[in-house]
Amino acid sequence: MDITNELGVPQETLDAEIKSFFESAPPLKNSDDIGEKLKKFIERNSLSLGNGETRRVVCVTSGGTTVPLEQRCVRYIDNFSSGHRGATSTEYFIKAGYAVIFLYRRGSYQPYCRSLPEDPLLECFEYTDESSIRVRESHSEAVKKAISEHHAAVAEGFLLKLPFTTIFEYLQMLQMVATSLRSLGAHAMFYLAAAVSDFYVPWKSMAEHKIQSASGPLDMRLVQVPKMLLVLRKDWAPMAFCISFKLETDIKILLEKADMALKKYKMHMVVANELLTRKDEVVVVTSNEKISVRRDKTQVGDVVENPLIRVIVERHSAYVEKPDI
Amino acid sequence: MDITNELGVPQETLDAEIKSFFESAPPLKNSDDIGEKLKKFIERNSLSLGNGETRRVVCVTSGGTTVPLEQRCVRYIDNFSSGHRGATSTEYFIKAGYAVIFLYRRGSYQPYCRSLPEDPLLECFEYTDESSIRVRESHSEAVKKAISEHHAAVAEGFLLKLPFTTIFEYLQMLQMVATSLRSLGAHAMFYLAAAVSDFYVPWKSMAEHKIQSASGPLDMRLVQVPKMLLVLRKDWAPMAFCISFKLETDIKILLEKADMALKKYKMHMVVANELLTRKDEVVVVTSNEKISVRRDKTQVGDVVENPLIRVIVERHSAYVEKPDI
Repeated sequence: MDITNELGVPQETLDAEIKSFFESAPPLKNSDDIGEKLKKFIERNSLSLGNGETRRVVCVTSGGTTVPLEQRCVRYIDNFSSGHRGATSTEYFIKAGYAVIFLYRRGSYQPYCRSLPEDPLLECFEYTDESSIRVRESHSEAVKKAISEHHAAVAEGFLLKLPFTTIFEYLQMLQMVATSLRSLGAHAMFYLAAAVSDFYVPWKSMAEHKIQSASGPLDMRLVQVPKMLLVLRKDWAPMAFCISFKLETDIKILLEKADMALKKYKMHMVVANELLTRKDEVVVVTSNEKISVRRDKTQVGDVVENPLIRVIVERHSAYVEKPDI
Repeated sequence: MDITNELGVPQETLDAEIKSFFESAPPLKNSDDIGEKLKKFIERNSLSLGNGETRRVVCVTSGGTTVPLEQRCVRYIDNFSSGHRGATSTEYFIKAGYAVIFLYRRGSYQPYCRSLPEDPLLECFEYTDESSIRVRESHSEAVKKAISEHHAAVAEGFLLKLPFTTIFEYLQMLQMVATSLRSLGAHAMFYLAAAVSDFYVPWKSMAEHKIQSASGPLDMRLVQVPKMLLVLRKDWAPMAFCISFKLETDIKILLEKADMALKKYKMHMVVANELLTRKDEVVVVTSNEKISVRRDKTQVGDVVENPLIRVIVERHSAYVEKPDI
């Protein structure tokens, strides 16, 4: 008899899918270097704090993953995500005393940089008559904040940034982070805000050269990315507090899907976002609550990540006291 | 009897495909604003130069276009292109006395910025003890060049930057630029370095909401983007000097395809790039020549765009004297 898991598929099938995904993935470049950085970062932050407490570490994932359609990648499918949620949340986690491993899509938003324009170097600076460079007055506060707070977080060892592009890089790095954080037990958290591809083209079945655009339509078959969240929870870091995200454009199916994700992947929380209102309001779904979290519109510049991280930190504290796996 | 064109399809069929593409495209935002900017830029640059000559204007397209897979776009297919070729070529065109309309993918390389690191604001600057911001010594030259030369080109009216993201935006903007440049006759040039999607999902047949990842593989059908190059040559700006690009990963089929593109789309030149060597060498294919262009490896920092733009400007000058449509 097959043993089926929470996903309703035999555990063996999922294990085989995951094995096949990782085996078919192109090897991660710089994996030694990433491993070394992770080790140092976790060692530094797992020392007790002055008051005898251990510093908590959260892995924030941010931005979208890509799925290459060709081995020598010219075309790929991309999942849109600016990375605003992950970058902003990182700032609030650091403020709350967490150390953050920021696993982000290359080119997506960076912590402390959300008030900058799209092309900051060209837009924030000007050239003076004395042939030196000066920050434009209008951007001076945003530039100061970006450079000083960002550099301080990195220098003080509270922020480790690890970039990815493809779904293959992302899942390999997430596995490395998770197995590294296992030693922290309930003090570790995963805040999985990245927009991860659901479908991929297995590397080996992929066109080696560029797809030729002969006449006629192009038909493509993509296979599902195995559900790694469950493996993260069960094998990679079973004690870590896990939060995933659900984004839908259709509000009607959003909460239902968030609820399903909570159960299927054994998450501790699912943050439900509706595409159009996600910057003002989200709903935090747990096994026995639905908490609506809104930004304070009476406070200029308040963002929904401020109350959201407050709720999460509170629940994480309760979990650290009494882990309930 | 159908009249077939260079593509071997009845002209009526192509016209219908193009009509259907533009009709199904979401309307371009800010089209009035873009129209106004184009008008001013061309007026300013079509005044005679001191020596009685007219300034030439080139439209450089750069970066890749995206194809949305959903109307409220979460997933899309992207064509990879850093925009390095287009951005660098823009610098050399301006140096050669051209005015440049730089039609670029948001977030791709910008002219005068190719020596900057990936995240210039965070990497090039530091915070000093006197709580002011300073350029790091190691990046000081690159930052100065980026800010001073870029600002000068814009301020002097030689550089107009127009950003796009989707294939719909790109082709609508290209049409606007082309019909605006028509009045310059042979003095106008198109240098089409952007990586344009070959396939798209017609806007109206697209899922309104996010594609649901139910079980099973995802099958997608994409239709061909109509061949706009021919329409650009025949209708939008029939006198303009036109250069397109061919990128292949397989060197064996590259020159053959470049030759075909030259004839099919009536280009004046096709620049043939092989993915792995394209930064060192390209082949310029014309109706009667194949000119191999290489960067000078004995000169530190020389780029292939330097000799490439020299060849192109020379041929454009001959064309201006004696247009041969």
